[in-house]
Amino acid sequence: MGKDLAISMTATTSNEATASTVNLGPAAGLASKESGARIPLAPEFVSPDDFSPLEVVYDFGNVRREDIEAGPRSIWRYKQLLPVPPNVADYPNTEPGCTRLIKADRLAAELGVRKLWIKDDTGNPTHSFKDRVVAVALAAAREFGFKVLACPSTGNLANATAAAAARAGWESVVLIPSSLERAKVLTTAVYDGALIAVDGNYDDVNRLATELAAEHEDWAFVNVNVRPYYSEGSKTLGFEVAEQLGWRLPEQIVVPIASGSQLTKVDKGFQEFGQLGLVEPTPYRVFGAQATGCSPVSAAFRSGHDVVQPVKPDTIARSLAIGAPADGPYVLDTVRRTGGAIEDVTDAEVVEGIRLLARTEGVFAETAGGVTMACAKKLLETGKLDPDAETVLLITGDGLKTLDAVADQVGPRATVPPSAAAVHEALERGRG
Amino acid sequence: MGKDLAISMTATTSNEATASTVNLGPAAGLASKESGARIPLAPEFVSPDDFSPLEVVYDFGNVRREDIEAGPRSIWRYKQLLPVPPNVADYPNTEPGCTRLIKADRLAAELGVRKLWIKDDTGNPTHSFKDRVVAVALAAAREFGFKVLACPSTGNLANATAAAAARAGWESVVLIPSSLERAKVLTTAVYDGALIAVDGNYDDVNRLATELAAEHEDWAFVNVNVRPYYSEGSKTLGFEVAEQLGWRLPEQIVVPIASGSQLTKVDKGFQEFGQLGLVEPTPYRVFGAQATGCSPVSAAFRSGHDVVQPVKPDTIARSLAIGAPADGPYVLDTVRRTGGAIEDVTDAEVVEGIRLLARTEGVFAETAGGVTMACAKKLLETGKLDPDAETVLLITGDGLKTLDAVADQVGPRATVPPSAAAVHEALERGRG
Ligand SMILES: Cc1ncc(COP(=O)(O)O)c(C=O)c1O
Ligand SMILES: Cc1ncc(COP(=O)(O)O)c(C=O)c1O
Repeated sequence: MGKDLAISMTATTSNEATASTVNLGPAAGLASKESGARIPLAPEFVSPDDFSPLEVVYDFGNVRREDIEAGPRSIWRYKQLLPVPPNVADYPNTEPGCTRLIKADRLAAELGVRKLWIKDDTGNPTHSFKDRVVAVALAAAREFGFKVLACPSTGNLANATAAAAARAGWESVVLIPSSLERAKVLTTAVYDGALIAVDGNYDDVNRLATELAAEHEDWAFVNVNVRPYYSEGSKTLGFEVAEQLGWRLPEQIVVPIASGSQLTKVDKGFQEFGQLGLVEPTPYRVFGAQATGCSPVSAAFRSGHDVVQPVKPDTIARSLAIGAPADGPYVLDTVRRTGGAIEDVTDAEVVEGIRLLARTEGVFAETAGGVTMACAKKLLETGKLDPDAETVLLITGDGLKTLDAVADQVGPRATVPPSAAAVHEALERGRG
Repeated sequence: MGKDLAISMTATTSNEATASTVNLGPAAGLASKESGARIPLAPEFVSPDDFSPLEVVYDFGNVRREDIEAGPRSIWRYKQLLPVPPNVADYPNTEPGCTRLIKADRLAAELGVRKLWIKDDTGNPTHSFKDRVVAVALAAAREFGFKVLACPSTGNLANATAAAAARAGWESVVLIPSSLERAKVLTTAVYDGALIAVDGNYDDVNRLATELAAEHEDWAFVNVNVRPYYSEGSKTLGFEVAEQLGWRLPEQIVVPIASGSQLTKVDKGFQEFGQLGLVEPTPYRVFGAQATGCSPVSAAFRSGHDVVQPVKPDTIARSLAIGAPADGPYVLDTVRRTGGAIEDVTDAEVVEGIRLLARTEGVFAETAGGVTMACAKKLLETGKLDPDAETVLLITGDGLKTLDAVADQVGPRATVPPSAAAVHEALERGRG
């Protein structure tokens, strides 16, 4: 399949841009993740050499801290490190990134950790890290001549794709499992693209998208045919953490896993910053987080396997419910290479994680953030995370999108008539 | 009432900080908004001179663009212009601000406007501009020796107060009308402070808060007893717009009105920037936006009155549903002085406004944003907003918090089985 699709993609007439005319800044080509065999820049995702995934390779020039610091307050400050044209910021886009990194002293005290940071990516335009990857995918897709932005999604990507397309004036085609949370459905539909609910789980929807991508050469499926560009967007999470720490790398980072793309790219971002001399290339360990109800990568890690066995997801962390994670093997590589670990937690622990983070740091994460939080706690308890090493937790999605996860557990202490006495009484009761 | 309360507040033992020991940076005192009579910095909100509201007055030193630009990526970059201590950023706080200002060319084209910007304050930690005002209130309250953060709220303030208190390790007491949107209730409760639902509308809840503030001298009601400090936080919206435009003022700005505080402080921010030489003091016009179902300020403007007649709110824009707006008269002053206008729109127009903004710019606003958007459209249609003047719309709250407003109107185009043919058919139908 990979080969035929790749050929059909480059042979299209609608995407006239060829490797010689596209300008994706420092991006020099695509390479097989396995053999390293290279092809020119194109909207392809499978190596014609060995059918393995393709990855962007670069010719970086001299990249200096000053240039980044003088750049815009968005991911485009890192454009010299992304597969995007130099004038990327001139086209309407959602301008994601530059979200806050907050020191989490109260949470650290509760967990018994010395130095802890929360990277709160809920501050993005559609309140998840997916705005980053979609912005890069859109920029590359424009360069290749596409006019329609599409995706299969577990929810956050749907929001980000529909919003980015609306802002750019593109059409969008977004495919979601019909069981998705109401908030994620409405927050996609409101942007007025073509939103299609599919009776099936994410893996069914993803297969369908791959089929549609082969038929519609003018549709840029952000996480299918332009996936190599898309996934580079997650490097900006690594870049920002390092810049916000004052141009240095943390010692440990905990990242949630769905397809696994984000985790591998945060690592790639750290590595590139080190190679380019933007930070000292100090050692760091990457940790992965999954919900037990969809933990194929965690299971493979635990059993020491290189192969990730697909599972049928069953968890409230629906944004992470990818049973056949495309980048699973690369996650295992990264985590093992850096000396990290992968953990998984029950749905009850996910909810506890959400509440712990909210109560101690005022950050309301969605279920995926609950997974990260709860896995971090478990990794500490089992001695896999070092409590004395500086640690960053990636909170990648917003609690407002998964309210049902906490709806049974939190609410007003009391409903009272408008009298001071009634309020006092309610507060006393709360204390008692 | 004002006088007695003011005396009791300064006489408390729990708030030992006095005017001589508190350090609120450039803030030099409080002055009556009517007579200008001054008192020292204190947690008071009513002038003992004439019972009118108190406002912070400053001794600004030399404030330079370079110092602001070198500051943190949060409202604390403007700390030299706020009533906060110089070390404000050292205490745990939500680090709000520095939200995106995006050029809205597609919306501009649809409205027939030459140059339009959206200030998207949904990027704040709890996704509304209220994080700004609460952060300033918390900083001032800490300086006065308070330990509990409290508020009556129409929703967004509840979220912001509960989150800020959690992050700071303070207790919180939050009072809301029991009819509030589910999202706003849960998003407050999750931070685990004392959330009390009150059977009544916001104006009832606000009266109750004033009563409780008098009884509990150790509770800082952000928008009651420390309101003069709190409201200064909204100046940062004006500061950011001006800085993001490249250190200049827009010609027109449209601001939603609940209590009216924000509108008057955006104006104050523009004025201060001009006075300090940070921008050219070019003329600008301030426009106000209300929902017809709660439009006391718009009604007063239309009829040429100085007095705002309280109303009983009935609108889906619940965050703006303040029937007795404390700063109503000052809003009228500002709008008339600058040559602006105030408009109001029906709930149906609010929903259309939300959808228009989402469809054209990929920004999903709550009902308050729909009010701003729809009023801007109406002000253009009636010739009150100049289509040739550079215009900024303040989008102050998030669509995820008021999903019911659009739930009947948007959704998937179709729900289909996982087959390409079914997707094609659904898309064709959508087109036809
Ligand atoms: C909030 C959130 N966090 C993390 C992830 C994981 O992303 P990836 O597929 O790159 O592993 C997702 C994926 O949808 C997500 O929605
Ligand atoms: C989203 C939003 N916008 C605007 C306002 C208006 O604020 P003000 O009371 O300062 O007029 C509010 C008030 O709650 C709000 O929640």
